[in-house]
Amino acid sequence: MSLTEQQKEEIKKQRSISTKTKRATSFGMEENLFLAHEVLDHGFVRVIDYMGNDSSIVQAARVSYGEGTKKSRDDKALIHYLMRHWHSTPFEMCEVKLHIKLPVFVARQWIRHRTANVNEYSARYSILDKEFYIPEPKNLASQSSSNNQGRGDTLGKVEAENIISTLKRDSLRCYENYEDMLSQEGKKGLARELARMNLPMNIYTQWYWKTDLHNLFNFLRLRNDKHAQFEIRVYAEKICEITKSWVPLAYEAFEEYQLYNQQFSNSAMSSLKRIINGEDVDQENCGMSKREWIDFCQAIGRKP
Amino acid sequence: MSLTEQQKEEIKKQRSISTKTKRATSFGMEENLFLAHEVLDHGFVRVIDYMGNDSSIVQAARVSYGEGTKKSRDDKALIHYLMRHWHSTPFEMCEVKLHIKLPVFVARQWIRHRTANVNEYSARYSILDKEFYIPEPKNLASQSSSNNQGRGDTLGKVEAENIISTLKRDSLRCYENYEDMLSQEGKKGLARELARMNLPMNIYTQWYWKTDLHNLFNFLRLRNDKHAQFEIRVYAEKICEITKSWVPLAYEAFEEYQLYNQQFSNSAMSSLKRIINGEDVDQENCGMSKREWIDFCQAIGRKP
Amino acid sequence: MSLTEQQKEEIKKQRSISTKTKRATSFGMEENLFLAHEVLDHGFVRVIDYMGNDSSIVQAARVSYGEGTKKSRDDKALIHYLMRHWHSTPFEMCEVKLHIKLPVFVARQWIRHRTANVNEYSARYSILDKEFYIPEPKNLASQSSSNNQGRGDTLGKVEAENIISTLKRDSLRCYENYEDMLSQEGKKGLARELARMNLPMNIYTQWYWKTDLHNLFNFLRLRNDKHAQFEIRVYAEKICEITKSWVPLAYEAFEEYQLYNQQFSNSAMSSLKRIINGEDVDQENCGMSKREWIDFCQAIGRKP
Amino acid sequence: MSLTEQQKEEIKKQRSISTKTKRATSFGMEENLFLAHEVLDHGFVRVIDYMGNDSSIVQAARVSYGEGTKKSRDDKALIHYLMRHWHSTPFEMCEVKLHIKLPVFVARQWIRHRTANVNEYSARYSILDKEFYIPEPKNLASQSSSNNQGRGDTLGKVEAENIISTLKRDSLRCYENYEDMLSQEGKKGLARELARMNLPMNIYTQWYWKTDLHNLFNFLRLRNDKHAQFEIRVYAEKICEITKSWVPLAYEAFEEYQLYNQQFSNSAMSSLKRIINGEDVDQENCGMSKREWIDFCQAIGRKP
Repeated sequence: MSLTEQQKEEIKKQRSISTKTKRATSFGMEENLFLAHEVLDHGFVRVIDYMGNDSSIVQAARVSYGEGTKKSRDDKALIHYLMRHWHSTPFEMCEVKLHIKLPVFVARQWIRHRTANVNEYSARYSILDKEFYIPEPKNLASQSSSNNQGRGDTLGKVEAENIISTLKRDSLRCYENYEDMLSQEGKKGLARELARMNLPMNIYTQWYWKTDLHNLFNFLRLRNDKHAQFEIRVYAEKICEITKSWVPLAYEAFEEYQLYNQQFSNSAMSSLKRIINGEDVDQENCGMSKREWIDFCQAIGRKP
Repeated sequence: MSLTEQQKEEIKKQRSISTKTKRATSFGMEENLFLAHEVLDHGFVRVIDYMGNDSSIVQAARVSYGEGTKKSRDDKALIHYLMRHWHSTPFEMCEVKLHIKLPVFVARQWIRHRTANVNEYSARYSILDKEFYIPEPKNLASQSSSNNQGRGDTLGKVEAENIISTLKRDSLRCYENYEDMLSQEGKKGLARELARMNLPMNIYTQWYWKTDLHNLFNFLRLRNDKHAQFEIRVYAEKICEITKSWVPLAYEAFEEYQLYNQQFSNSAMSSLKRIINGEDVDQENCGMSKREWIDFCQAIGRKP
Repeated sequence: MSLTEQQKEEIKKQRSISTKTKRATSFGMEENLFLAHEVLDHGFVRVIDYMGNDSSIVQAARVSYGEGTKKSRDDKALIHYLMRHWHSTPFEMCEVKLHIKLPVFVARQWIRHRTANVNEYSARYSILDKEFYIPEPKNLASQSSSNNQGRGDTLGKVEAENIISTLKRDSLRCYENYEDMLSQEGKKGLARELARMNLPMNIYTQWYWKTDLHNLFNFLRLRNDKHAQFEIRVYAEKICEITKSWVPLAYEAFEEYQLYNQQFSNSAMSSLKRIINGEDVDQENCGMSKREWIDFCQAIGRKP
Repeated sequence: MSLTEQQKEEIKKQRSISTKTKRATSFGMEENLFLAHEVLDHGFVRVIDYMGNDSSIVQAARVSYGEGTKKSRDDKALIHYLMRHWHSTPFEMCEVKLHIKLPVFVARQWIRHRTANVNEYSARYSILDKEFYIPEPKNLASQSSSNNQGRGDTLGKVEAENIISTLKRDSLRCYENYEDMLSQEGKKGLARELARMNLPMNIYTQWYWKTDLHNLFNFLRLRNDKHAQFEIRVYAEKICEITKSWVPLAYEAFEEYQLYNQQFSNSAMSSLKRIINGEDVDQENCGMSKREWIDFCQAIGRKP
């Protein structure tokens, strides 16, 4: 990560200021406020602000005049009930605002989650920093042979080194030419909104991203998933930790009923019941495609 | 307004609790927290939570590492610039959560603002209170003769009294029958989700409603407007006051560039320029419809 | 249902007009266009317009230049794959517009689905028709003793008759007073936007409602569900039939992977694996609450 | 533009197929269906599908049983009334689906319009084509000295030639390395989801983009504007033409009341009234900032 001294100073200053508030407060989240949690080689996730805590979910579900409930045991039971039945509106009553630094190709996936508010650093207005994502060798993988949009084995050492060296060289050359097109010595200099088109998609951008807890869980369920690209998954993993510190009861329920849940189709349920009844089920007589049968067997811990 | 003693106690208790936070705080808004601001005969608006203040808008617009800016003069200039050019995303970075008690027919207009989060008191789960909106005589108006969806003159005393007495009588009778259908003495009692259908639309409901500042301004611009129905406008007026205490700079810019701005169509602009050039413009030669011409003259303070 | 002769005439006329188009067409849906499908005692669902068919989903998933695919077998496989993995965006590429007549208390549940476009018949502008939902005796049920927001047993004949007679009487009286407050004989007459507040929530309203196929499936999954109130479920069931005629492949996949799928929590999966391995699992040692254990047993077809 | 022969063939084939429909049809739009309208050097806009026409707006505003109105003169009056008063919901009842090919840096601006459905060509799944946006010399401009996010004068011939040559060289080199990293000869080859990060942001991507007419107008108002970047404005201009052919009455109203309208702040209105009353108003006594005063004078056709 590469915070400048001035940035570190600003973060330190913000963390030192404390005021009184009557609002719902999350002690776990206060610890996280403003801190830059490292992700990838130059990226980070910083909590800028939050609204609500576990009690706010209960309070909203009850449309109550005071706090949520008297006993935290009741809070937990209600939150689990709401999550289990996919009651989304009470979770929408908590909100979080993050400052995220991330490569452009990751940002392009991220922005597909539409129910969020975004302010991105503007390359029309400002000059982007000279920071590019260069994967670690262990994260350089070949195209998956079974999954058209995933990764397979890690590349060999020589091939990885060549690729890293190419990525670095192209990034730097493009950036130098970007700077050169902008620069003013004896020339007019190209407008920033045009010059930026020469930058590759591993350059880092940053934005403020704000969303509610329900939509955050949607994001985390889809991106903290084995099918998600590694480079966005590491952000989701970090945000999972942060969310756990913010709303521990809701996060626990999220893991139980959403992140680690399992879905079975109508056909899969038929097979499941037959297996429990001691029937002999295989791919031929299960009514599922080969791919589904394999996934099904894996889910129930059985060899296909 | 009709808060029970227990509700007053819960509100008082919440207002007495104060914790430390590193988050952006609005001192004006802290004063409002949890207080029930009366609207109509039994309604209210209560601030339950908020996120951000004027500085948060600046901070997001700059995607900054620390606070917004050094000088509040700069904050004001930037906020006015953003509002003037309808840059909406920085205003989306502030959020507010309100507890609102309101008649059902007002709730039905309100819910049309889709970019908000809502938890409504459930009449499937709970029994609604016996509280109905009965207008004051001065707010009982006849159908407008010029505007198909508005009000005209106030009704005469006798007619108003008759109407109020009818509204009261029908409300009470419907509620008594609602209670009667629910009640269990020697009978099974109708399910709440069914019995509620007998209640008239002036009964009060309540909800938690959460939205961002940009969408709140959209709501306020449309509902704190002479074309809005009186019964929703009074809520919007109250929320305008609250918003002013929360984000005074943003609210000032909102009044200047949105709430009290004036829009001129392409044809109106042609007429305007001709008038400034000393030409004699009237409805016949202005290219606008009669209705538009009247509105145009009113806007520029001239007799049609 | 109560279409006037003029309305029937207008529908007949629209159904008789046919033009040529290069657009994707669904033959099943063409049959449904404009027809009023009865729901409840005065309600209906009418298809006003639609965009796309099964091929459009494939075409969008492939961002293709021509039609979706050559073979319909491939279309089916891809659509099932997309549905199975909750890829929502290709389903968003189909759109439907419905004209729906429904009781106000149903409309208030319906509108909570925010990702849709709505034009409702305005009671500020027009006078509502004298049509109220009066349930059939067999649909009059008592409050559920196990589910706080549901129904239990059907009411006895006498109690049902009393309730129906009360609902009818209150509806009519409120409507008569509504008309009376509006009427102009020798009086000014109350503005429509005010008079409507005297109407009970079983009065019928109507709206145009437009949404995309992905959000329609969300609506159908939640509302064609045993936990949904009967009065909205019958609309969802009718729309399921219509959707099946429109996009048969997508609808089939929806039933397989969403409508009739089954979800198991993390704890439920542990129990499931233990059961398959022949272990003796009961509520005490399953790690689930009593309620969850019962639901789990029911799902796998076993006595709790 | 660079359609392959096969793509041209597929488009031709789709245009030749015609079926019967009972749906609302726009004859102007039928002409546009599937045709690739050129934008920039390799980009295009193609209409894939549409729902509704001018009558559909009227029909929805009236929640009618048949077609909109009898006379097209009434349709026009109502549509103008709706647009003038920013009634957005009837315009949401029309929908359009476009296939767009555009440079990535343009796509990143475009996607900020959240109320739309998108399926983008996947660079995780497929290999991107070797097509880059290289501006024409006349569109190569220097940074604006007055506007921090805009363009100033066009660059001189030599500087422009150098820049174009740099853009071409870097694009090609990055693409060659992209291909090289992917390729399999004797090597595993890097996964596509990783290799794409080496591509610069002037590479072309493509997507299906679907939105309703109200949100399309929002897009067009913001992007067919002098403050928008040239490279997105040309897409907006092309879509304006298409929209005009689709819903001519709505488009005319859009130009009159939204695209070419003028907004005056509260302070600007004070000055305007004083000017009309013959007072001598200048920047010192107008209550506006310098920048606002200049814009105001320009709007009313007067020297600052």
